[in-house]
Amino acid sequence: MISHSDVAAAGARIGSRVRTTPVFDDGERWLKLEQLQHTGSFKARGAFNRILAAVEQGGLPDAGVVAASGGNAGLAVAYAARELGVPAEVYVPETAPAVKVAGLRALGASVVQVGREYAEAYDAATKRVADTGALFCHAYDQPEICAGQGTLALELEEQTGGVDTVLVAVGGGGLMAGIAAALEGRSRVVAVEPYGCPSLHAALAAGEPVDVEVSGVAADSLGARRVGDIAFDVARRTGVTSLLVSDEDVVTARRELWRRYHLVVEHGTAAAYAALLTGAYRPAPGERLALICCGANTDPSDLTDRGTPGS
Amino acid sequence: MISHSDVAAAGARIGSRVRTTPVFDDGERWLKLEQLQHTGSFKARGAFNRILAAVEQGGLPDAGVVAASGGNAGLAVAYAARELGVPAEVYVPETAPAVKVAGLRALGASVVQVGREYAEAYDAATKRVADTGALFCHAYDQPEICAGQGTLALELEEQTGGVDTVLVAVGGGGLMAGIAAALEGRSRVVAVEPYGCPSLHAALAAGEPVDVEVSGVAADSLGARRVGDIAFDVARRTGVTSLLVSDEDVVTARRELWRRYHLVVEHGTAAAYAALLTGAYRPAPGERLALICCGANTDPSDLTDRGTPGS
Repeated sequence: MISHSDVAAAGARIGSRVRTTPVFDDGERWLKLEQLQHTGSFKARGAFNRILAAVEQGGLPDAGVVAASGGNAGLAVAYAARELGVPAEVYVPETAPAVKVAGLRALGASVVQVGREYAEAYDAATKRVADTGALFCHAYDQPEICAGQGTLALELEEQTGGVDTVLVAVGGGGLMAGIAAALEGRSRVVAVEPYGCPSLHAALAAGEPVDVEVSGVAADSLGARRVGDIAFDVARRTGVTSLLVSDEDVVTARRELWRRYHLVVEHGTAAAYAALLTGAYRPAPGERLALICCGANTDPSDLTDRGTPGS
Repeated sequence: MISHSDVAAAGARIGSRVRTTPVFDDGERWLKLEQLQHTGSFKARGAFNRILAAVEQGGLPDAGVVAASGGNAGLAVAYAARELGVPAEVYVPETAPAVKVAGLRALGASVVQVGREYAEAYDAATKRVADTGALFCHAYDQPEICAGQGTLALELEEQTGGVDTVLVAVGGGGLMAGIAAALEGRSRVVAVEPYGCPSLHAALAAGEPVDVEVSGVAADSLGARRVGDIAFDVARRTGVTSLLVSDEDVVTARRELWRRYHLVVEHGTAAAYAALLTGAYRPAPGERLALICCGANTDPSDLTDRGTPGS
């Protein structure tokens, strides 16, 4: 369980090691442009908080830090470790694209390729941690990770003077948990998932985290097989609403963010915007709403409508 | 000639018809994210100011407004006219890409294709204005256009508390003129042009605006054959510094803005950033510097390094 005080402590701990990302008022809502964060997603916040909290609590092991992720979480841990002068090992499947492996290595991480699926890389990472005493940085289900991500919401609150509602995409739920804890009692959180990545939706329906099949355009960033225990607890405690959107609407929403604002985001981020475009979420008149643009590790080469006019 | 009071009046006139675009503090400087403006560039500011000033001064002619531009200026005039319920005719060469013509039409403009070069379309537009009494919206060399663009600088000043230096790319010079007038006596303006689009640089060297040959990667947005008279006067009066950068450095700078911040901009915008990356402009320690990201009407399909780590 995490609460506002954990997020506030994370903010003090992280300080200026992460960027204060801008908010953009498009006339109807705020867009929190967190894709401008170091390594292109919010994940740097949690990675710094996890590592710095360990330093505070007696120092880091010589073995450094370990993560299991070929995506945003892995990049963020590699970046934070490099900035803090800590060795990092990142476990990914043998099937990880060469460009992702190269990206991790460019940030100074040792990349270990194990197995054919993410689960095998994850198991190898946890075994490595058990063997060496390294600090494991989970992609979403650790208190320091969730609290770190939540610092985005404290920034948002200061930048906007407070909002009624935050619309955010959910994968494993670390960002959602951090935001909901940070703003508990002051803002509602609406969680959006594609039908193909319904970990939170399925958990709320089942009354506990359950495994789901993952698929679809946003699976690279939102495709957690099971929502985190922390995320589930915070979602239930704070009354997070869960919505689902189609892949087709996610693709349209990503294109619209380019056409209207010249913002490039990954499909996971576009899921949250899709909930607005489709009317899956309809703000009340005057509702103060913020949309979290959480990441942009994406290939923009399909966004080629150079002549589209914006709006 | 325009001055701070013209820009302040433009700001009051335009009001909330343009977006207040965010500023982003990357830890070393501010980036003014004006590419998030309506139609993807700062040009909407000047277009609104030109049309609204005419309304104030006795009303618009029934013939509406006319522009000659297949680029950002044309899009902005079409957008502003549509929002204000005014008919717009936009003149472009017969050689204008179909996608640009479609973009103008999507904003409700009548598109007139004349001649093989921009100069012929421009001449046809001015003839049309003489025949019908329509309001001509120049791409850069009218006081209301320059003053409107300058409202960006008033926003920037409010958002940052003031800067020492503004780095901005120059084509015809409307934006530079507006910024320099707005901040006269308080901030320095450094104007950056590619070697292939040196209209301001050549004018300052010659002591008056002179025709230049235009070429290179940024010619679509910066390729004015002659800097505006207003821009030249304001630049000389306020002591604007002029720098040149190579096309190769512009291309690199555009890629770096994507890699480091996940921002997509057009090559014209990247010219300003190139001056920093290459050291053509070196800020002093502690210098408060703002870089203007002035447009994103670009094809992002060459920015495909999905695995690059940002920073």
